[in-house]
Amino acid sequence: MPTMTAAQRREAERAEYDAFLAQCPTRQLLDRLSDKWVTLVLVALEEGPRRYSELARRIAGVSQKMLTQTLRTLERDGLLTRTVTASVPVTVTYELTPLGHSLQRVMAGLKVWAESHMGAVLEARASYDAQP
Amino acid sequence: MPTMTAAQRREAERAEYDAFLAQCPTRQLLDRLSDKWVTLVLVALEEGPRRYSELARRIAGVSQKMLTQTLRTLERDGLLTRTVTASVPVTVTYELTPLGHSLQRVMAGLKVWAESHMGAVLEARASYDAQP
Repeated sequence: MPTMTAAQRREAERAEYDAFLAQCPTRQLLDRLSDKWVTLVLVALEEGPRRYSELARRIAGVSQKMLTQTLRTLERDGLLTRTVTASVPVTVTYELTPLGHSLQRVMAGLKVWAESHMGAVLEARASYDAQP
Repeated sequence: MPTMTAAQRREAERAEYDAFLAQCPTRQLLDRLSDKWVTLVLVALEEGPRRYSELARRIAGVSQKMLTQTLRTLERDGLLTRTVTASVPVTVTYELTPLGHSLQRVMAGLKVWAESHMGAVLEARASYDAQP
């Protein structure tokens, strides 16, 4: 079999998977990635590695449990790396992998969309709620 | 105040909102949009209006309750319109608004990402789970 480029491999995989099908593994992946904490963590790591404490501060309101769980899932899925440095105190740093960067670009689009269209959505809701 | 173009208005809104802040309304909007059914409904409407029954068939495994609720929320947020035609039987058709189309483009990116990188994610998971 001839070697495929990374782009050809992605194209072949895309033809193989279809999130419209209930049993396709991409349905479950889409479910897992559809999470505001995933979006916010990926965007918070956009500009480079961050320590756990920095992420907790940046993502206001996230609980320690939720942040830890989100980071572990993203690490397992190959989207970020976790590095423990044996300093005093020990520091734990998270950094996007190339795979994580590719998803981050999509997720940043979602965050930007929400921030750019909030006014339009609020107007639509007011108009809907005013219907008899 | 000088009239702003649509693009200027979106830029101004984007500066005003920040989903990293727990109390920002965009945090709640991001939470609502982060839903696999939202993604799948928007993508299913990409090519034009669809009847309820067509959507139910395309999005395999969605329950009637979940589809109805997702469609109602998207209608309230101004992302799609619902049209009832007084035929026999009555037909109900859903169609993206321009606002919905703009979000659909982002969401399609998420679905394509999942379908294009499923293999890489599965490999990362296997490698993570094989760690001692």
